[in-house]
Amino acid sequence: MPLPDVQSSEPDIRINLTRVGVTDVKKLVKVLRKDKRPIILISTFDIFVDLPKDRKGANLSRNFEAIDEVLEETTFEPVTEIEELCSRISEELLKRHEYASRAEVHMRSEYVIRRETPVTKMKCQEVVDIFASAISTREDGVTTRKSIGAEVVGMTACPCAQGMMKEIAIKKLRELGMNDKEIEEFIACVPIATHNQRGRGFISIEVGGKDKIPSLDRIIEIIEDSMSTRIYELLKRNDEARVVMDAHRNPKFVEDCVREMARRVVEEFPQLSDDAVITIKQVNEESIHRHNAFAEKIATMGELRRELNGG
Amino acid sequence: MPLPDVQSSEPDIRINLTRVGVTDVKKLVKVLRKDKRPIILISTFDIFVDLPKDRKGANLSRNFEAIDEVLEETTFEPVTEIEELCSRISEELLKRHEYASRAEVHMRSEYVIRRETPVTKMKCQEVVDIFASAISTREDGVTTRKSIGAEVVGMTACPCAQGMMKEIAIKKLRELGMNDKEIEEFIACVPIATHNQRGRGFISIEVGGKDKIPSLDRIIEIIEDSMSTRIYELLKRNDEARVVMDAHRNPKFVEDCVREMARRVVEEFPQLSDDAVITIKQVNEESIHRHNAFAEKIATMGELRRELNGG
Amino acid sequence: MPLPDVQSSEPDIRINLTRVGVTDVKKLVKVLRKDKRPIILISTFDIFVDLPKDRKGANLSRNFEAIDEVLEETTFEPVTEIEELCSRISEELLKRHEYASRAEVHMRSEYVIRRETPVTKMKCQEVVDIFASAISTREDGVTTRKSIGAEVVGMTACPCAQGMMKEIAIKKLRELGMNDKEIEEFIACVPIATHNQRGRGFISIEVGGKDKIPSLDRIIEIIEDSMSTRIYELLKRNDEARVVMDAHRNPKFVEDCVREMARRVVEEFPQLSDDAVITIKQVNEESIHRHNAFAEKIATMGELRRELNGG
Amino acid sequence: MPLPDVQSSEPDIRINLTRVGVTDVKKLVKVLRKDKRPIILISTFDIFVDLPKDRKGANLSRNFEAIDEVLEETTFEPVTEIEELCSRISEELLKRHEYASRAEVHMRSEYVIRRETPVTKMKCQEVVDIFASAISTREDGVTTRKSIGAEVVGMTACPCAQGMMKEIAIKKLRELGMNDKEIEEFIACVPIATHNQRGRGFISIEVGGKDKIPSLDRIIEIIEDSMSTRIYELLKRNDEARVVMDAHRNPKFVEDCVREMARRVVEEFPQLSDDAVITIKQVNEESIHRHNAFAEKIATMGELRRELNGG
Repeated sequence: MPLPDVQSSEPDIRINLTRVGVTDVKKLVKVLRKDKRPIILISTFDIFVDLPKDRKGANLSRNFEAIDEVLEETTFEPVTEIEELCSRISEELLKRHEYASRAEVHMRSEYVIRRETPVTKMKCQEVVDIFASAISTREDGVTTRKSIGAEVVGMTACPCAQGMMKEIAIKKLRELGMNDKEIEEFIACVPIATHNQRGRGFISIEVGGKDKIPSLDRIIEIIEDSMSTRIYELLKRNDEARVVMDAHRNPKFVEDCVREMARRVVEEFPQLSDDAVITIKQVNEESIHRHNAFAEKIATMGELRRELNGG
Repeated sequence: MPLPDVQSSEPDIRINLTRVGVTDVKKLVKVLRKDKRPIILISTFDIFVDLPKDRKGANLSRNFEAIDEVLEETTFEPVTEIEELCSRISEELLKRHEYASRAEVHMRSEYVIRRETPVTKMKCQEVVDIFASAISTREDGVTTRKSIGAEVVGMTACPCAQGMMKEIAIKKLRELGMNDKEIEEFIACVPIATHNQRGRGFISIEVGGKDKIPSLDRIIEIIEDSMSTRIYELLKRNDEARVVMDAHRNPKFVEDCVREMARRVVEEFPQLSDDAVITIKQVNEESIHRHNAFAEKIATMGELRRELNGG
Repeated sequence: MPLPDVQSSEPDIRINLTRVGVTDVKKLVKVLRKDKRPIILISTFDIFVDLPKDRKGANLSRNFEAIDEVLEETTFEPVTEIEELCSRISEELLKRHEYASRAEVHMRSEYVIRRETPVTKMKCQEVVDIFASAISTREDGVTTRKSIGAEVVGMTACPCAQGMMKEIAIKKLRELGMNDKEIEEFIACVPIATHNQRGRGFISIEVGGKDKIPSLDRIIEIIEDSMSTRIYELLKRNDEARVVMDAHRNPKFVEDCVREMARRVVEEFPQLSDDAVITIKQVNEESIHRHNAFAEKIATMGELRRELNGG
Repeated sequence: MPLPDVQSSEPDIRINLTRVGVTDVKKLVKVLRKDKRPIILISTFDIFVDLPKDRKGANLSRNFEAIDEVLEETTFEPVTEIEELCSRISEELLKRHEYASRAEVHMRSEYVIRRETPVTKMKCQEVVDIFASAISTREDGVTTRKSIGAEVVGMTACPCAQGMMKEIAIKKLRELGMNDKEIEEFIACVPIATHNQRGRGFISIEVGGKDKIPSLDRIIEIIEDSMSTRIYELLKRNDEARVVMDAHRNPKFVEDCVREMARRVVEEFPQLSDDAVITIKQVNEESIHRHNAFAEKIATMGELRRELNGG
């Protein structure tokens, strides 16, 4: 029985739509990274195309065919990075939705990284959130911009409260007869109290055309190293002491974390073109408040470079 | 003891930040709407300013002083709409953060609307999600753009599956000896099965300067009326029958819901200027899948008007 | 048209059900507490009855009629506590579901408390989560057990890491020539660093029959005072210094917080009978890990009393 | 430097604690099921022991050592089921926390199952939520009870609204001159409209000692088959028609779904002893309301057997 194709009929209200698609689609994804063990992810996809004004509906099942075909192909021709997977799917979408001029694929997943603790060097697993996306547009041929990103939890210690605690410590040490040089030596060696908390850092990098995107693992390390300290699922007593000391020797506002991430992105990814778009965020789950502190920088790589060069 | 002001010092990394602020701040808000009972909301605010490159940190406690002062003032000079509250706060933020050129306030809340059921006319309460925001920029004087929006749950029935079920019904009725006119009469009277589900419609409207924003209650009604049917917390048997019939007589794709909302926004809000920005979304929690169907239209009021006039 | 009552027919599979009902029902609730301003809450209710084996379904719309009637009545005969509201609804449910032998009502809500900051005495609002429930059973007459509870966010500082940091401080102070008495004086005055974080404390108290339940406001204060320190939405610099000092002078494990809450419940609520059931929990969102630390004590009031008396 | 062991000291408040541990611990888990492909899960664990009154704190890092050692061992001696993994961990916990008399392990994960669509037989992946736990107690030796469960999304169609729509159809068919036999034939062949929606079914089975627990895959199939129909991520037009027809031919209340699951558990798992504890739930995300319908049965296997045998 040939079924009526309601979707391809004319709609009563003739306006085009910016995005039509499906959200919260879960798929097993296998990624074969160069020189590394393969990773298997349960990823959640949101997939959209635009819709012209003379078409009632998009054939949403084609979105699944596009994902499934690309995932199938990866058995023979593996993807090495998740943004590559997204761009393959978004290009496949434009092939299958012949009426669309734009296709968009977003994926998010949990990803396990291996770390070792700072003192006792025990192995531990840490779970981070990773993201990738691709937007393909059809004009003269198909162009694709793709992005990759991660959100990682670390620890931040507040410089402002630490400044106030330091005043108290210095005052007391003076009262007890210590001289300035001794006080300086004490402060340099002993961590001064402050409020500290879980912070969540985020970087995403969007590039066009043939630009080579940095590796996710490198992005994750930059996020971890831009907070007061990395954190670990498993800490022996000596590890815990080290983490607490490190955090207190390296206090950071949300603003500091974002600026540090920006600096490192510019320094460590010289291959990115000036039109790459960088989004950087930091959220601190303040231990002294119920609300969070937040900072964000959105800029092109060119803008970041100029700013950091004092332009 | 005069405390050191760490935030106003120079940062080591001199880049400006797009947004610095606090998120998930909860406040009791009282709104005195014209000719209506006052409403009390527990609202969640996100509040940001930008930060110049020569300043280490924003004084986040000023954000609270700005909210608190505006909320305090409303005791004497009540706000009548939530977007007005946001714009008062964002303008207050620019006063208090003298170094900022941009302030941004977002609020979200649950809001109770009163409805009556379609047949038995019982009273019931329905809870919807509401949103407002304001962005103030300082150039020659302060300019503020503000927006308001809502997300409402309703019911959608799928036209495509219904088309297929109709084929089956028609075929059977023919087999049983009914003629075309009788079949048409049957189809017109009896709801034909299809999959149906909760849908979530969303409209937000952003306007600049002195533009008058439509009332939230009117926006909520447009969202409700653009799905297959409104839904209700309490339904007597006859009400339930009516809701099911209504939904099946008015099947809608996600795309249809978005286009219907767009049409109604243009028709019912002639006062909006062409540069108002309209965002419309529909999510259907498909009963035949684990994933959701999604459609979105983002356009200026001018673009929407031109499209609907066949431009 | 008299409609068929499918629910009252016999089911094919004759087993009784433990709970049948509705979840996530939102309602505006007004509570008129003694000697205090009235409060208006948007509350979420879960409502259940049991179902005998000879009945296909429960009439779920009766649950709404029961809530609505009780809420309506409160206009004339106000409730003064939320657990009283739940018990009125659960008793009304047993009246309306004549086949049921047990009715159960749970409600949860956000609740705004007023606090002032420790040093500058500024007023601020804090939002906490509150809970109430009632279970009515029909045997010879109707008996109702009811409960009330709250979850509140505060700050905890780790005693273990602080112990390690103290060792470092003492060692350095000795190196710099301080004697034991001076060191003791320093430690008593200056807060020693440790990791600290948001903690969430929880107490619920369930009583039977005519037992008088303690006030929610008192329960909330016990939770707040059993962590290392209370926290505040708005803190001036001197307030922040005080909060950080207080937390570091009063370090607490999750276990300590639970035991402290238990001690205070016994001490401050002598009116509770021995068969009241007390549930106490503490979750620390550890700043040095991605996971949380957790402790819980579930016991009758009689058991708690015996334990605390060394029984 | 030998560090002070704060946790093993005496607490000021001498009460024992019901549960002390860690929550939201994420780990990669590999399960080698018999005759099947190995599966890799990102699982979230909650892990607790009890704490005697004379001990200030539990050594939470031992929880990680226990998990890590068991996961490590599985490389050599693989687990074939997730509840087996939990019971190995809970027994290891009792070894490492020599002061504890009870250890508890809960794990949850997403799990991908393979299905094919009902008509076109396309392959698709469906994601379900799975759970396992184990509780070990130390008295004369160690005893462990373990459980396994799953939550699966399907579709339910309401029998009550369908009954009302059927009345309307029959009345109209009569008006149009159809006789009773023809009407019956029509109703038997053509799906009659009703509201339908996503339903979530849940079964968990807890057994003691040496009882063999049923396979997770079989439990998932029972849940799927107890709703009006299974649902699929990918549906061609003919598949969609079939799913809609199936749902409408098999309308189910929440109560029906729970009773059907109970019947199948008794029928399909004769190996379970009478003291196995069965928890069965169904939540329907009603398309005509914002709230959910809910039913639950908690009983021992013995009770279920007696009820189903008319006892």
